[in-house]
Amino acid sequence: MKPISATEAVKAIEAGTFTSEKLVQSCLDRIAERDPVVKAWVHLDPALALAQARAADKATGGLLRGVPIGVKDIIDTHDMPTGHNSPIFEGTRPFGDAACVALCRNANGVIMGKTVTTEFANRHAGPTGNPHNAAHTPGGSSSGSAAAVADGHVPLAFGTQTGGSVIRPAAYCGIIGYKPTFGDFSRVGIKMQCHSVDTLGLMARTLDDIALFRGAVLALPPVAIDRDVSAPRVGFCRTPIWSDAEPDTQALLEKMAARLGAKEVAFAPEFRNILDDHGAITGWESLRNYADERLRNPDKVSAELMAVLKKADGITFDRYVAAQRKTVAFKAHIDSLFDDVDVLICPSAPGEAPKGQDFTGDPRFNSIWTLAGTPCVTLPLGAGDQGLPLGVQLVGLRHADDTLLSIAQWVLSHA
Amino acid sequence: MKPISATEAVKAIEAGTFTSEKLVQSCLDRIAERDPVVKAWVHLDPALALAQARAADKATGGLLRGVPIGVKDIIDTHDMPTGHNSPIFEGTRPFGDAACVALCRNANGVIMGKTVTTEFANRHAGPTGNPHNAAHTPGGSSSGSAAAVADGHVPLAFGTQTGGSVIRPAAYCGIIGYKPTFGDFSRVGIKMQCHSVDTLGLMARTLDDIALFRGAVLALPPVAIDRDVSAPRVGFCRTPIWSDAEPDTQALLEKMAARLGAKEVAFAPEFRNILDDHGAITGWESLRNYADERLRNPDKVSAELMAVLKKADGITFDRYVAAQRKTVAFKAHIDSLFDDVDVLICPSAPGEAPKGQDFTGDPRFNSIWTLAGTPCVTLPLGAGDQGLPLGVQLVGLRHADDTLLSIAQWVLSHA
Repeated sequence: MKPISATEAVKAIEAGTFTSEKLVQSCLDRIAERDPVVKAWVHLDPALALAQARAADKATGGLLRGVPIGVKDIIDTHDMPTGHNSPIFEGTRPFGDAACVALCRNANGVIMGKTVTTEFANRHAGPTGNPHNAAHTPGGSSSGSAAAVADGHVPLAFGTQTGGSVIRPAAYCGIIGYKPTFGDFSRVGIKMQCHSVDTLGLMARTLDDIALFRGAVLALPPVAIDRDVSAPRVGFCRTPIWSDAEPDTQALLEKMAARLGAKEVAFAPEFRNILDDHGAITGWESLRNYADERLRNPDKVSAELMAVLKKADGITFDRYVAAQRKTVAFKAHIDSLFDDVDVLICPSAPGEAPKGQDFTGDPRFNSIWTLAGTPCVTLPLGAGDQGLPLGVQLVGLRHADDTLLSIAQWVLSHA
Repeated sequence: MKPISATEAVKAIEAGTFTSEKLVQSCLDRIAERDPVVKAWVHLDPALALAQARAADKATGGLLRGVPIGVKDIIDTHDMPTGHNSPIFEGTRPFGDAACVALCRNANGVIMGKTVTTEFANRHAGPTGNPHNAAHTPGGSSSGSAAAVADGHVPLAFGTQTGGSVIRPAAYCGIIGYKPTFGDFSRVGIKMQCHSVDTLGLMARTLDDIALFRGAVLALPPVAIDRDVSAPRVGFCRTPIWSDAEPDTQALLEKMAARLGAKEVAFAPEFRNILDDHGAITGWESLRNYADERLRNPDKVSAELMAVLKKADGITFDRYVAAQRKTVAFKAHIDSLFDDVDVLICPSAPGEAPKGQDFTGDPRFNSIWTLAGTPCVTLPLGAGDQGLPLGVQLVGLRHADDTLLSIAQWVLSHA
């Protein structure tokens, strides 16, 4: 049976034909059945979830009334530990909720539990498996959130993206991932990795659910998906790293580009190496942002993260500044591409989810857009050579997220 | 006796002619004598400070070896409470240090204690008095840090600026305040108010100390103040709100402009109301960023902050987006002003520190530059009609902070 969407659930609960308690219980049942294999959850307190559900049933209204939400474990919760997949924070319970969690509670959502993250949303992976084939990674760093939504544990979950940590795992797991325009969503109470790019993102199985969830996080009436948009002007952006995409991904994108009547859109030559600038900014910032962890608790930081930070120590301040200046020009350049198109399509990831749990996959097709600050959506539009999901990434003009989501719906129904 | 600077102290401690223990004890003595009037400190543990000092004396090297540093009480410390001047956080001790604190510890600095902040670095003031006249405000929100440095309690202190919370209190207290280029300093472990503008800043009594302190926070060898810079091209920027400056401030700026051979530099007309955009961005963001506090603990939020947030609730998303887009153009415009000048001078505040403790003064002459993301320095270059300090604000090109600090030294010696 296809699991119910958040939008349908809220409607039914509001109509009195369904209850949050039943929904949450069915999600808990699904988790009990599947999580021994998928391992999406690091903290789950069924009694607390059901208590929230009963309160939501008694409440009135709320955009997310009664809907269970998975929360990546670098996001603070006042009533659950927030462990960051690090022994440094094992069992620590924050003094408050992250703003995004508080806003979901205010919308009468149910904070279901905490989902597995890589260590501090960096590289060191947790145990989560891909629901389509648990021998493969679900992607990272928002590993548990993507797997939980894909496997029907919850309809909604939070992820965060510094490189490709929302779009990539969503693509690997065959769901919809959404990274908003940089700055729109509050980051209060979310462990900061790189302040210039870190972005809270959303995962769901339908675009209507993304729009609803987005409304709650913005604390605004949601802008519904517009199903009457006219055919958008689609740009096919291979990006300067097209050759890093695997053949099945290249074939999917070329098929979609043809089907959607897309024209080729390329970066200006001076941005050919823009990924290096993403690397300079994130490296320079993360070395400083993790100062407390690496200096006071070096023995509790993974070898992977220490290696990342050691490499980052070679980035000079001049290089950082040059990358920041280049990013200003890059953002303006990307804005200018939208003079001719309404949306860009490109790969969501190089290919299918890699085998094993240690390597969560390459974020390079996402880091470009995280640096650009553009809104991005991944749609599950194909399958690769191993039968695992492939995503198509849609990129919109900064601050035109509503438009992007409606275009994404158009693409879904024309793909 | 003039208190020793951080630069002098480190030199003497390194040379073995002075000890951190003596320095910290003399600072503790000064605090014991003066803090009953100034009220700059909210948490001070003399034994912990002295223990750190003795450890620094035994250590080798470190940019800030043995120097006591005041930390604004919205900045996390793992060994001291971080109260945010809010009953919500009373007595809570964070799990880790803010990155800036960790980096100072790594430079063998002594974390002296926590200084009074307005509630969450917003408006609701603490009890701190201006060291020059305790019946007047020291400014805010970094009230205790500015007062402590000005009154010889510590040579260095951290502040943060969302509107004018570093430059204004530094000017009111007659010290040097420095706000770096947006993004350069880590904000990890600092309570976030408005992610698009919040900036960690530094306070000291000499520019050499600012340069040293900055090196520690950037985790880089400090760039020493260059005392051989040639006469800079000075721009006199009255800003669109010149008429809000009091006569003594206007007179000081006009005198300085004449003395420095400054040419008038004006904003393009489309940025006349740029302060409204700062207000739209900070209002929109703070309403969401304080979601947990206002929704889960409304009774523990001050009436002032609730009023600020209530007003912010009227800001539409479209207005927020328009302000963000305008800010991109504004930053480019401000960059372009530096084609013709090396530095801009303008008021650090409308005038002297207002009387009373409830109103910490108007940040409008600072908010413009906080939005622009430019580095700013305030220099104590005058006194007002009531005998309280007046500052002159120097604004530099983004990412050219070293240059700005050296120009500031040139201005100090030519003013």
